[in-house]
Amino acid sequence: MTTSAIPPMTTRAIPPRLLLGPGPSNVSPRVLAALAQPLLGHLDPAFLAIVEEVQAGLRRLFGTANELTLPLSATGSAGMEACLANLLERGDGAVIGVAGVFGERMCEVAARIGARVTRVEAEPGTALEAESMAAAIARERPRVVAFVHAETSTGVLQPVEAIAAAARESGAYLVLDCVTSLGGLPLALDAWGVDAAYSGTQKCLSCPPGLSPASFSPRAVARVRGRATPVQSWYLDAGLLAGYFGRERVYHHTAPISMIYALAEALRIVLEEGIEARAARHRSAAKALVEGLRPLGFEPLVAEAVRLPMLTALRLPERVVAAGEAALRRRLLERHGIEVGGGLGKLAGSIWRVGLMGENARPACALRLLAALREELPG
Amino acid sequence: MTTSAIPPMTTRAIPPRLLLGPGPSNVSPRVLAALAQPLLGHLDPAFLAIVEEVQAGLRRLFGTANELTLPLSATGSAGMEACLANLLERGDGAVIGVAGVFGERMCEVAARIGARVTRVEAEPGTALEAESMAAAIARERPRVVAFVHAETSTGVLQPVEAIAAAARESGAYLVLDCVTSLGGLPLALDAWGVDAAYSGTQKCLSCPPGLSPASFSPRAVARVRGRATPVQSWYLDAGLLAGYFGRERVYHHTAPISMIYALAEALRIVLEEGIEARAARHRSAAKALVEGLRPLGFEPLVAEAVRLPMLTALRLPERVVAAGEAALRRRLLERHGIEVGGGLGKLAGSIWRVGLMGENARPACALRLLAALREELPG
Repeated sequence: MTTSAIPPMTTRAIPPRLLLGPGPSNVSPRVLAALAQPLLGHLDPAFLAIVEEVQAGLRRLFGTANELTLPLSATGSAGMEACLANLLERGDGAVIGVAGVFGERMCEVAARIGARVTRVEAEPGTALEAESMAAAIARERPRVVAFVHAETSTGVLQPVEAIAAAARESGAYLVLDCVTSLGGLPLALDAWGVDAAYSGTQKCLSCPPGLSPASFSPRAVARVRGRATPVQSWYLDAGLLAGYFGRERVYHHTAPISMIYALAEALRIVLEEGIEARAARHRSAAKALVEGLRPLGFEPLVAEAVRLPMLTALRLPERVVAAGEAALRRRLLERHGIEVGGGLGKLAGSIWRVGLMGENARPACALRLLAALREELPG
Repeated sequence: MTTSAIPPMTTRAIPPRLLLGPGPSNVSPRVLAALAQPLLGHLDPAFLAIVEEVQAGLRRLFGTANELTLPLSATGSAGMEACLANLLERGDGAVIGVAGVFGERMCEVAARIGARVTRVEAEPGTALEAESMAAAIARERPRVVAFVHAETSTGVLQPVEAIAAAARESGAYLVLDCVTSLGGLPLALDAWGVDAAYSGTQKCLSCPPGLSPASFSPRAVARVRGRATPVQSWYLDAGLLAGYFGRERVYHHTAPISMIYALAEALRIVLEEGIEARAARHRSAAKALVEGLRPLGFEPLVAEAVRLPMLTALRLPERVVAAGEAALRRRLLERHGIEVGGGLGKLAGSIWRVGLMGENARPACALRLLAALREELPG
């Protein structure tokens, strides 16, 4: 065994942080306490009751009766891969809306699956045009239509219903990325006609990262069962996952016990508050943020009509860009314990992404950031 | 939003369990306390220091200097998929040793990737014959040779060095499943010439399930970078993962923060004890188990020379088989809080799998099981 030149293990203190980036958000002490519960086996009836509770809670948040609604045992990016890999076979067409980095990622994932990808683009900071999506869908007659509900790289809310209608009309399967919207906006997968959706736990659910809540419509499950070729991923095969997350409860892989405890508790907190009340709280926190930071020269990137409540992209004041925005973010982290997110892709260096998500969707969090910025940007 | 017919969320108590199945094993209170630490962002220097500590600890346990040694953000089964998907392209040959359910799973995963799979089988409860593997390798000249170090479905330890030598000689890439061996047996990936290995956290590491420790040799990384086609999985692409788990620390997906805290603490515990001492503890616990249960009619399935220390497959006494072994397992769980594992595949109904892993690798755990069985099987 190699032992040379490896530093000794030491216990490290975790510094306190106010997490105002694009996720993770801070989690409730109740969720931390749930994480620390002793383990159960993954086939123990006591654990399966918790899995069932999680599945029921996710159905309420997704707005669906889909039986195959489950926490995938990986992060949100794996949820994206799961939804696309189950519905697409090599050579299938996919029309994908690209309004930022996460729409971009969908194209990359679908291409690796072997799909013929048609991109429909929007300028960064703007929403997809439903007409352009509808035109591409009518022209390509794709197997799958996919886009991001709440684009985390720009803070834009996409028009679900109009695009969904075009997808339904063409017979395509609709995949919706709900990573940043689940738990912060009311979702209605069934009413919209979404066939497969996925999310992450570390944003508006205020649960640690590590699971991807996902939901597959009966039509999507039938598609998976009727494929000509097996799903390329054994781990993410919805047909196999249905064995454990359905009535039979047969072993597929070992479920991540502690993370599922945490998600169960996070969902209880969301449902105790109520989705509408929670969405309203996100809206008022975002309002406080935009109004508070505007006098310092931070301007929202996105027009109000399509601006997300839980994640706000802010154009940086010229003096911050000139001095290097990364240095200011580092000072916020080191001197004030506040994390905010930088820009991704083309927007790197010119915007920040400030998340007021879940537990942090409170004007008080916006005010803490404002106070820290006033100290760091005097005058 | 659908709200009808969904039961209300209720707080549930977690019943105490002694987890003597094939994993999860019980975890130390120190690991539970680590899980409950407040969150950090996945790009926070304070978190990256913990990631680095985990990577260093895993290198020591795997017995490797491989730079790309990391906790994959999913369970052990995804680790299997990651190792095979990174090294195999469609049409590549793979020689896979099948001595139980997990070797079987490797074949299924490799076939879905598009590999031409050659199976080399061993009877359940016996080890692979190195000569048969060597002959298949010489005949097929495969891209990848893969097998399971510690076959969790039968409790058999496979002969790594002889098979590894044949793989090396042929130029194939060697993939080793270390799910059940990591933390319970000394591993020596570099000395053996293993190119890619994966494990799980919930067995001999005594950490909750949810991560897959994995390691890729420089030769494996070069193979990934030199592929003609991209890795089919974006999420598990070792070339992309090297961005976050290498020197650059660039965002790929959001790391599962809390689980990485838990793994860091679990690794500290292993390294404080020392791998050799820990392996010895597993051996003496297994000895106590076999000696204790033999008088009740439980006989080891596997010959002593190739029997695993951390997981023992036991042939059941005739009276237990006749009365239905599942009923006895249920009584152990409900009346004594003890979980043991049933048989998988062909061995279902005729064996149990008893894991004395990590925290539970103590004669006292074997004695608790023995006492419960004496009560349930009088006479």
